[in-house]
Amino acid sequence: MKIAYLGPRGTFTEMAAKILARDNDIVPYHSFYDALMAVEKGEVDEAVVPVENSIEGVVNGTADCLIFDVDLYIQELLILPIRQCLIAKEGTELREVTRIMSHPHAIPQCRDFIEKYMPNAEIVTESSTAEAIKKVSLSDEKVAGIGAECAADLYGLSVIKRNIQNTDNNFTQFVRVSKKKSIEYNKDKVTICFSTTDEPGALYKILDIFSIFDVNMSKIASRPMRNKPMEYVFLIDLDVNNNSKDIEDAIKLIERKSSFCKNLGCYAIRDNRLQK
Amino acid sequence: MKIAYLGPRGTFTEMAAKILARDNDIVPYHSFYDALMAVEKGEVDEAVVPVENSIEGVVNGTADCLIFDVDLYIQELLILPIRQCLIAKEGTELREVTRIMSHPHAIPQCRDFIEKYMPNAEIVTESSTAEAIKKVSLSDEKVAGIGAECAADLYGLSVIKRNIQNTDNNFTQFVRVSKKKSIEYNKDKVTICFSTTDEPGALYKILDIFSIFDVNMSKIASRPMRNKPMEYVFLIDLDVNNNSKDIEDAIKLIERKSSFCKNLGCYAIRDNRLQK
Repeated sequence: MKIAYLGPRGTFTEMAAKILARDNDIVPYHSFYDALMAVEKGEVDEAVVPVENSIEGVVNGTADCLIFDVDLYIQELLILPIRQCLIAKEGTELREVTRIMSHPHAIPQCRDFIEKYMPNAEIVTESSTAEAIKKVSLSDEKVAGIGAECAADLYGLSVIKRNIQNTDNNFTQFVRVSKKKSIEYNKDKVTICFSTTDEPGALYKILDIFSIFDVNMSKIASRPMRNKPMEYVFLIDLDVNNNSKDIEDAIKLIERKSSFCKNLGCYAIRDNRLQK
Repeated sequence: MKIAYLGPRGTFTEMAAKILARDNDIVPYHSFYDALMAVEKGEVDEAVVPVENSIEGVVNGTADCLIFDVDLYIQELLILPIRQCLIAKEGTELREVTRIMSHPHAIPQCRDFIEKYMPNAEIVTESSTAEAIKKVSLSDEKVAGIGAECAADLYGLSVIKRNIQNTDNNFTQFVRVSKKKSIEYNKDKVTICFSTTDEPGALYKILDIFSIFDVNMSKIASRPMRNKPMEYVFLIDLDVNNNSKDIEDAIKLIERKSSFCKNLGCYAIRDNRLQK
């Protein structure tokens, strides 16, 4: 079995793909779209892509592709803590570092550490944490990168310091998706998306259905409807809670009362936040 | 009066700032955060920033800053159509162009035009459409950039072709914000944000308030609550419709029933989509 993931190698998404791959081969792709289309076209069996980060919010590229472009189902969700590492050539001392390279999102996440230990280092941003670590491996100067531990292994570098992020509240949710129709409501969560007619109270009427069936909605996000300005698709997570008959009936009613509805699957959650 | 905007010069945001500035001076800033903080600190009187694009969705940087970092109110909203132009040195012929430069979002928006007229041109992405047009002005080769018409003027280049985007459904909403408390409900729309307690049906209960007061919600988006994983802030637009007493009472009730609530102001909408 082959599993696509959003590359490049040496990123947190690669870490997630390894955890969710159960010893199957993982294959990097250039974009969310390419990784998900590889499953849709049958080039690979599954894909692992990020869906939400606790600081940045919903990953729009993944959400739009799952809503509009492919017919895939979520099989499993992984909550992965984002533990940033300072990575450099072996023997590099913190106080020697003249330049720090990373992704633009990773730098502010580690601002406290940088200000305390390397206040004078120059900051350079790169397209991914892995790309930054690669540049560190190619440099002859005293430079360091911020990124995932697995990037240090990939490029033969050392982790100078682990867990340099300001807060431990930073984690990313990744999903494993495939063509397998996962719509039996016997796991932890269900994700559905729907759009309403453009009438006053239309969304309220749909949420009323969850209330009637005692279904708890744990998340709601909205995305613009493609090619319909000012209309939205709502992306909703529902807690299953041994409530499968209610969930089933609520979703059936939403399918009838919405102008567009798609079930993205029922899946188990693997929460790695407490693992060291 | 001075008005901050998200730079660089020569972008669609600069066009929006000029339209909303009513002949006042406009000043470019490096980020949403810097532009909004300049108002908060009193360096400038107002700021113009993008809040939503019809394809990309809510602009997270602006939303989070207005929710968490500053106490500013929306005074006016502009809906600006994004009309991409092919820009090059005067006399450049379409078929001569060997390289096209633009922002990563602008390239797919113009894919049909590129495939039809310049299928063999190399594609190079830059950090903004304005940066791409600047590089065109500095190049001695047959290159072209895709961006806002105002960038052609700025860098002394010509518009080779106007309106090269695939669809006319691409527009961006910009807001003009200041410290002036705009909470009299006598304009087109109100934006509020709130978070609910983490109980089943909590969001539904809040939306019920709009239903009771016959208030139409025209948009709902969610953002992660800062430093509270798995909790969300909802950003909601309400139509005023000469309904000011109902709006006022509904918002008062939401303030009582939510764990966090902030009124971002009542404002007029200026819709430039039909202007040529």
